[in-house]
Amino acid sequence: ILPAPTAALALSTDSFVVSPLFFPGGDIGSLAVHGTVNDLAVSGARPRWLSLALIIEEGLAIDVLHRVLASVALAARRVGVQVVTGDTKVVPRHAADQLFINTTGVGEVFFPLPGPQSLQPGDEILVSGPVGRHGMAVMTAREGLEFDPSPTSDSAPLLDAVVALEQAGIPVRALRDATRGGVAAVLHEWAQASNLSMRRREQDVPVTPEVRGACEVLGLDPLHVANEGTMLAAVPRGAATAALEVLHRVPECAAAVRIGEVVPRLLAPVVVRRVLGQEIPLDEPLGAPLPRIC
Amino acid sequence: ILPAPTAALALSTDSFVVSPLFFPGGDIGSLAVHGTVNDLAVSGARPRWLSLALIIEEGLAIDVLHRVLASVALAARRVGVQVVTGDTKVVPRHAADQLFINTTGVGEVFFPLPGPQSLQPGDEILVSGPVGRHGMAVMTAREGLEFDPSPTSDSAPLLDAVVALEQAGIPVRALRDATRGGVAAVLHEWAQASNLSMRRREQDVPVTPEVRGACEVLGLDPLHVANEGTMLAAVPRGAATAALEVLHRVPECAAAVRIGEVVPRLLAPVVVRRVLGQEIPLDEPLGAPLPRIC
Repeated sequence: ILPAPTAALALSTDSFVVSPLFFPGGDIGSLAVHGTVNDLAVSGARPRWLSLALIIEEGLAIDVLHRVLASVALAARRVGVQVVTGDTKVVPRHAADQLFINTTGVGEVFFPLPGPQSLQPGDEILVSGPVGRHGMAVMTAREGLEFDPSPTSDSAPLLDAVVALEQAGIPVRALRDATRGGVAAVLHEWAQASNLSMRRREQDVPVTPEVRGACEVLGLDPLHVANEGTMLAAVPRGAATAALEVLHRVPECAAAVRIGEVVPRLLAPVVVRRVLGQEIPLDEPLGAPLPRIC
Repeated sequence: ILPAPTAALALSTDSFVVSPLFFPGGDIGSLAVHGTVNDLAVSGARPRWLSLALIIEEGLAIDVLHRVLASVALAARRVGVQVVTGDTKVVPRHAADQLFINTTGVGEVFFPLPGPQSLQPGDEILVSGPVGRHGMAVMTAREGLEFDPSPTSDSAPLLDAVVALEQAGIPVRALRDATRGGVAAVLHEWAQASNLSMRRREQDVPVTPEVRGACEVLGLDPLHVANEGTMLAAVPRGAATAALEVLHRVPECAAAVRIGEVVPRLLAPVVVRRVLGQEIPLDEPLGAPLPRIC
C-alpha cells in the first residue's frame, strides 16, 4: 500500500533474461533496476516504486542470488526508487536458465514530454553517450571473446540527465533510451511516429574504440547494438546547444553530442549522410542479432 | 502515462509459471490476471492497471500465444482492469518452459483493512468457497490423472466479493486469497502476524467430492492445496453472520462458511478441533508439494 501520488503516473514493465548474469559493467540485478527506471525517466517520470519478481531455476547457487539482490538494492538506492513488493518462483532444472527478473516501475510525471509525434523538421537529435556498449559487453562476455580493453556496459540510470534537462527549461520534444535495436531502432520509431525522416551524420555518433573493434570483428553496426544507459533526445534546433551544455554536466552524459536532425520525409525513414555528402538508408534492426542482452 | 489516482495505491506483482498452460477451469492467461487482481482486491484495492510481461520459449506455437492473450483480455475486461504496458522476451529453446507471464497490478484503495495484526480472540474466520480446487485441477491435468468428475480450478476474480463486503459496511479485519500453501498457509501467516492462534473446526471446511477424492489418492491435505479464487476473511464475532449473507449473494462465494476462530495463543499457532473435541496442530506447508501450480 503506497501513498496517493500527486501527479500523473507512469507504469513500465520489463523482464530481464540476460545471459550471462554478470558482465563487465553490471549484472542482471542492476540492469533490472536501470532498465525500468530508465523507461520511466525517458517518459518524464520520476521512478518512485518498483516491484521485483524472480523466476529461479532450481539449483541456482544461493551466493549468486545474494549478489544479484545486493546489486538490485544498490542500484535502487542510488536512483532513489523503493522496491516495495515482490514475488519468487522456483522452477525445476531446465525449465528456466538460471534466473529471470521482472521489474515493474511506477513513476510520477514531472516533465511531460510531447513525444515523437511532435517532432518537426529542423529538430536536432542528440545522443547522451557512446553507443553499443551494453550489447557488446554482454556478447563478448557470453562468447568468451577477448578484447583488450574489453567493452563495458553503459548500464546506468538516466534520471539525473532528464531532471537536469527539465530544471534547465530545455523544450525537449522526445526522449528514448536506446535499448533493444540500439540507436537505429529509436530513429525508426521516431520516423514512424512523426511521419518525417531522421538524418544522421555519419562522423558524429560516438563509439568507443573497444566497441568499434568488437563490432568490426563480429560484423555488427554499433547503431544496431543495445544500450542500457544511453538515450536519444530530440530538441528544437535552437535548443540543442543549451541541451548539450546541460547534459555535459551529468557524469553519464559527458560525451553527449548532436548526431543528426529531423528532416521532411525522404524515400527512407532513416538515412545516414556520409562524410562526402551522399545519403544512404539506415536499415531497421530486424530479428534479434543479439538475443538475451537484457 | 496514467491519470493521477485520487486514493492510496496498492502495487502487487506475480510471475506465473504454471504447467500445463491450460487446465480445467482456466489457463495461464486468465490465471495471470486473476492472481494479481486478487492480491489487490484482498488488500482492499480496486485493480485499475496491469502490466503484462511475457517470457516465451522459442518455438512456442503462435496459436497458443493467441489463445493465452485472448484469455488475458477476457479476464481483464471482466474485472474492469486495463492492461496498459507490456514486454516480450523470447529465449532459446530449453532456456524457459513454453511461456512465463508476469503481471503487476496497480490498484486504488477503496476499503482500507487493518490487516492480520489487528486480529482479536473471538474473531471468526470465513472461507469464501470450497478449497483446493486450483491445485488439484493443475496437478491432475499435469500428471494425466483421470478422476470423474475431474477437479476444476476456482480461478476467478474476488473483487466483487470484496466490494460487496465494503458496501455492506462489514468491519473486516483481514482478507487473504489462499494461494500457494492453501488455507493452512494463510492461517499460519495470520497466527504469526497476530501472535494469536487460529482454531479450525474440522467438519466445516468445504471441499468438493472431486478434490477430496483426488487428495485422498495423492495423500494431500486439501488445506495445503492452492486456490486461485478463494479467500479467507476474518471478522469480529458479531459480524460473521452478516458477512456470510453478503458473500452468499456473490456467485463465486455461494458456499462461503465459517471455518474457525481466532483464540488466545495455544501451544501451536494453528490447531484443528476434531469432531470429538480434541485439538491437533495443523502443520505449516513446507517445501513445495505442488510446484508450478501458479
